[in-house]
Amino acid sequence: MTVRFAILGAGRIGQVHAAAIASVPGAALIAISDPVEQAAARVRDAFGADIRSIDAIADADDVDAVVICTPTDTHADLIERFTGAGKAVFCEKPVDLDLARVKACLAHVERVAGILMVGFQRRFDPDFNALKSAIDAGRIGAVEMVTLTSRDPGPPPVDYIARSGGIFRDMMIHDFDVARWVLGEEVAYVMAAASNLVDPAIGAAGDFDSANVILTTASGKQAVITNSRRAAYGYDQRIEVHGSLGSVSAENTHMARIEIADRDGYHRPPLLDFFMSRYTAAYAAEIAAFVHCVTTGAPVPTTGHDGLMALALAEAALRSVAEGRRVAIGELI
Amino acid sequence: MTVRFAILGAGRIGQVHAAAIASVPGAALIAISDPVEQAAARVRDAFGADIRSIDAIADADDVDAVVICTPTDTHADLIERFTGAGKAVFCEKPVDLDLARVKACLAHVERVAGILMVGFQRRFDPDFNALKSAIDAGRIGAVEMVTLTSRDPGPPPVDYIARSGGIFRDMMIHDFDVARWVLGEEVAYVMAAASNLVDPAIGAAGDFDSANVILTTASGKQAVITNSRRAAYGYDQRIEVHGSLGSVSAENTHMARIEIADRDGYHRPPLLDFFMSRYTAAYAAEIAAFVHCVTTGAPVPTTGHDGLMALALAEAALRSVAEGRRVAIGELI
Amino acid sequence: MTVRFAILGAGRIGQVHAAAIASVPGAALIAISDPVEQAAARVRDAFGADIRSIDAIADADDVDAVVICTPTDTHADLIERFTGAGKAVFCEKPVDLDLARVKACLAHVERVAGILMVGFQRRFDPDFNALKSAIDAGRIGAVEMVTLTSRDPGPPPVDYIARSGGIFRDMMIHDFDVARWVLGEEVAYVMAAASNLVDPAIGAAGDFDSANVILTTASGKQAVITNSRRAAYGYDQRIEVHGSLGSVSAENTHMARIEIADRDGYHRPPLLDFFMSRYTAAYAAEIAAFVHCVTTGAPVPTTGHDGLMALALAEAALRSVAEGRRVAIGELI
Amino acid sequence: MTVRFAILGAGRIGQVHAAAIASVPGAALIAISDPVEQAAARVRDAFGADIRSIDAIADADDVDAVVICTPTDTHADLIERFTGAGKAVFCEKPVDLDLARVKACLAHVERVAGILMVGFQRRFDPDFNALKSAIDAGRIGAVEMVTLTSRDPGPPPVDYIARSGGIFRDMMIHDFDVARWVLGEEVAYVMAAASNLVDPAIGAAGDFDSANVILTTASGKQAVITNSRRAAYGYDQRIEVHGSLGSVSAENTHMARIEIADRDGYHRPPLLDFFMSRYTAAYAAEIAAFVHCVTTGAPVPTTGHDGLMALALAEAALRSVAEGRRVAIGELI
Repeated sequence: MTVRFAILGAGRIGQVHAAAIASVPGAALIAISDPVEQAAARVRDAFGADIRSIDAIADADDVDAVVICTPTDTHADLIERFTGAGKAVFCEKPVDLDLARVKACLAHVERVAGILMVGFQRRFDPDFNALKSAIDAGRIGAVEMVTLTSRDPGPPPVDYIARSGGIFRDMMIHDFDVARWVLGEEVAYVMAAASNLVDPAIGAAGDFDSANVILTTASGKQAVITNSRRAAYGYDQRIEVHGSLGSVSAENTHMARIEIADRDGYHRPPLLDFFMSRYTAAYAAEIAAFVHCVTTGAPVPTTGHDGLMALALAEAALRSVAEGRRVAIGELI
Repeated sequence: MTVRFAILGAGRIGQVHAAAIASVPGAALIAISDPVEQAAARVRDAFGADIRSIDAIADADDVDAVVICTPTDTHADLIERFTGAGKAVFCEKPVDLDLARVKACLAHVERVAGILMVGFQRRFDPDFNALKSAIDAGRIGAVEMVTLTSRDPGPPPVDYIARSGGIFRDMMIHDFDVARWVLGEEVAYVMAAASNLVDPAIGAAGDFDSANVILTTASGKQAVITNSRRAAYGYDQRIEVHGSLGSVSAENTHMARIEIADRDGYHRPPLLDFFMSRYTAAYAAEIAAFVHCVTTGAPVPTTGHDGLMALALAEAALRSVAEGRRVAIGELI
Repeated sequence: MTVRFAILGAGRIGQVHAAAIASVPGAALIAISDPVEQAAARVRDAFGADIRSIDAIADADDVDAVVICTPTDTHADLIERFTGAGKAVFCEKPVDLDLARVKACLAHVERVAGILMVGFQRRFDPDFNALKSAIDAGRIGAVEMVTLTSRDPGPPPVDYIARSGGIFRDMMIHDFDVARWVLGEEVAYVMAAASNLVDPAIGAAGDFDSANVILTTASGKQAVITNSRRAAYGYDQRIEVHGSLGSVSAENTHMARIEIADRDGYHRPPLLDFFMSRYTAAYAAEIAAFVHCVTTGAPVPTTGHDGLMALALAEAALRSVAEGRRVAIGELI
Repeated sequence: MTVRFAILGAGRIGQVHAAAIASVPGAALIAISDPVEQAAARVRDAFGADIRSIDAIADADDVDAVVICTPTDTHADLIERFTGAGKAVFCEKPVDLDLARVKACLAHVERVAGILMVGFQRRFDPDFNALKSAIDAGRIGAVEMVTLTSRDPGPPPVDYIARSGGIFRDMMIHDFDVARWVLGEEVAYVMAAASNLVDPAIGAAGDFDSANVILTTASGKQAVITNSRRAAYGYDQRIEVHGSLGSVSAENTHMARIEIADRDGYHRPPLLDFFMSRYTAAYAAEIAAFVHCVTTGAPVPTTGHDGLMALALAEAALRSVAEGRRVAIGELI
């Protein structure tokens, strides 16, 4: 069986998913939708899909699943509409920036018994996956402390910042999800610190560009997340998990695996500097997982609840910064 | 323009090239040919090509180029036939195990002004390419000494060994080509040592499984090649080039980029252990380069002459082992 | 000029300093004092010093400097006595576990214009020093975020825990000092989380064994410190500093710089697993720095004030854990 | 028991051994001898030894052992004189540049039942030792192939080159010894290539600056040695041993274990660039081993025979270059 896809939104992330679908056996791209015709045409030309309206896709008999890559404020509505129309839905994070709206949306999905997978592609990265497998295989014993480092090569445009929901909801949300995944236990408390060090314009937009967060579970496991909107050396993406019998870490991905030695020392290339090149394999594996679930009826690996919890952690972090205190996740959810 | 391909031979390497063609924009697989119907059908089913006879492919109007993946002893004849039929030809190394036959074949290709590219995929590996670019950019000054290490995870079946032409012509031929490529100067002299350490059956078949070779150019540059048919830790593929201003090296590729630390120390996964997974990207880039040449008329990056010279070096190494002396390449070519 | 030393306290750290003095040109060990005669005799036999009482050392004309390695609760009194007696004093951290007592002691030292250096050996580690030099040379631009990871191979005996002052004052105090050193700006706020994951007996003794702390300066620079009393793979000691132009990190020290590759992967030895072997060079460099200051009158690199501030940070972390809030350092000092 | 030493020759290597003796428990430096009074005085002042003539040392009752650090052409005579005088002798390599003279000298030592240890400090390097221990512990199975890389930071003065015996006897002799040590079997055949790439003056002096050698044992084990008189990035000293169950390698030693990441990539410091800093620990361990043998009567770990065999391999390599052929070690010894 081949899962027939439509993609809603032909922007950068829509193109990533189009390429992922093209590379996954058992997946076919049928349609693309975007108000900007040029964007839709680019996907059509590169991957051979029809250009259709959202309405037409909702009514189409030849579409089994949709990938939602539209602006954030349309996600929840589209999820409700397409699960209601009997399509399997893959939605880029977040479901919504408002926790109550997310909950309502998830309740709808549950009511219609819809299939909803939320995009947290890092869980599908081959190296992070190997790290998780090592943990699950007992290689480091009981998980005790997690350290996540995520640094972007540079800040996004300030107008993006302004409507992004801020560093915790836009950027660190991925780390919150990874933290929950590797901790293997829900987070109980959040403490956060945030500063404006990279660009004053980000501060002027009411956001931060440098943040550290400590998560604690009920049993006392801890995770530290470090985020910066600037890293001269590329897209810095690391996980380290410390357990009772040892540690496991996943390394960064360099532009090439070469080393030059000269009178100044030993030199390796910078890191891949873009999420599309860094996570190419992860995006493909993510779509493959979704296809597997749609085909077999297996439960999706990254659920609407995962999206909700990651957002709640972001919310808690923001409140911790504002109020200078430890915030219980129970205050929010 | 799309280059329309047929693949002759649907074995392991034929499948590699089918996958490479599928992943390269501007390339389409039209036909597959193999006396073993099941093998041909597997490629057809996976990649959507017609099954045709070699004769039919030679006559076909809808085939621009062929990839020759048949047994070695058919290569030269097929090259001659298909360049004669006006098809662009990509042939897996070697053109032939006999130097005179190779020369005759190349003369034919020249006569008919055919396009012939010989498959030395390592030159297209992204890491090796980055190494070569660093050299060409002057990062290590003048090249002085090259060290190539190639070790297979384990020996091939002895019946393969018996008809392979031996370790120098079957395995080290790739290193000879890489050595020529990074030395940037023809090899003048060859000294070689070879032993039988891995499996006595290999010795019984008249071959070696462990070998070291020193190549010297007229200006005194040297390259050392180390080969073994056994490496417990995977497919060991390294290049180090030493120059007047520094060195550059390309690292191995591990199964995952994670590290586990426990009471016994720090542990990384073994290397990728198969040429198909190790060189996936290289094979795709190689076909892309061929497509580029066919489309634009640019000269091919790995020529019949490259195939001839690598074979001559293998021949010289064999003679050096047999006679215990430095062999001048001029004795052979 | 040779600085003539007496060591007060012949325990483990006293022996470390005896060895350091023996290896530093311009330093001579004259006397050792310890209530346990066997301990004193061991130092005497290994390094050739006299055994003397503390009183005799205070009165001695042939002693220029003392190294205080006695139990913590005697430090402040001994500092006051020996600076009063005109000896240069090197005291192991901490000056005292009580902030007020530390302040009073430092006031005394100032009154008598005494020389007091407090032992924070990590600043003298060659690798950490190279990291600091790179920062000072502008290699990473402005410091923004610091990550310190310190994990002990295993917890100390519980009776030591009970009188140690707890993980923040006993273990993390070194990281607080290093954080201040590399941040280059005083810490303004402290947020901390602490758990009991390694050994319930530590929790029963009222202490924690796993802790994360976020420090923030007035300008918004942040430092994260991760501590655990357990690391199966050895003594884990890492620093990473992130700045506007890049990052710099100092790696761990393994038992040997070899790597074994076998069918299970690539393996390096565990880390050095004891502070005495890990910081041998640091202890020697620390004493050499002290000797330099005593000889030339240069200001000491690690002052009583440094000891006070590190203790205040520990105090603030403890309060942050207890009260679940961000603690301003101004509340304490 | 303390072994009382005299050092003959107060040049660079003499100072290295003086420092080594000072750091080894159970060793004491009594006397130093050098025709250049200033050189002798420097050792006396730094380490507290008497300046004496060679004659006085030979007759001294308070000297148990001598370390010979004089010019090469005096080694054999001094070994004979001091073993004859009942002193234990540690002699820097080589015993002599002439094989016949070495043999005669060793015969003398045997006649007088003298103690003679020849200086091959690399065997005592902690990392190389850990590598050898891993081999001896069976971690890589049967040794099959050895790769040794030795590159000097830069060439020595040409007048040194002229009287050094050439690259094989002066520089590669250390690698020949290490190769024999890790192969665990005598070398049967030598093939060598050598060029003049670094400095024409070296060629004018009749020597080479770049060389590769393949050693083969009777059972077919092979070792490759790569030497260059130039390495922009420091003193390059690596060993890799490949066996039936895996490989083990010893890494280089950098000036510091830090890494800087910036817009140009990841950067580590150059290697230690001097044999005295690179092998400080090795020289101390070497003297400690000698002291152990003198004290206990245990056989020395690096014998006159080891010196003879390394020299024979150098001789064979030179002949292989000259005659363009594989040279049997039996032709020389």
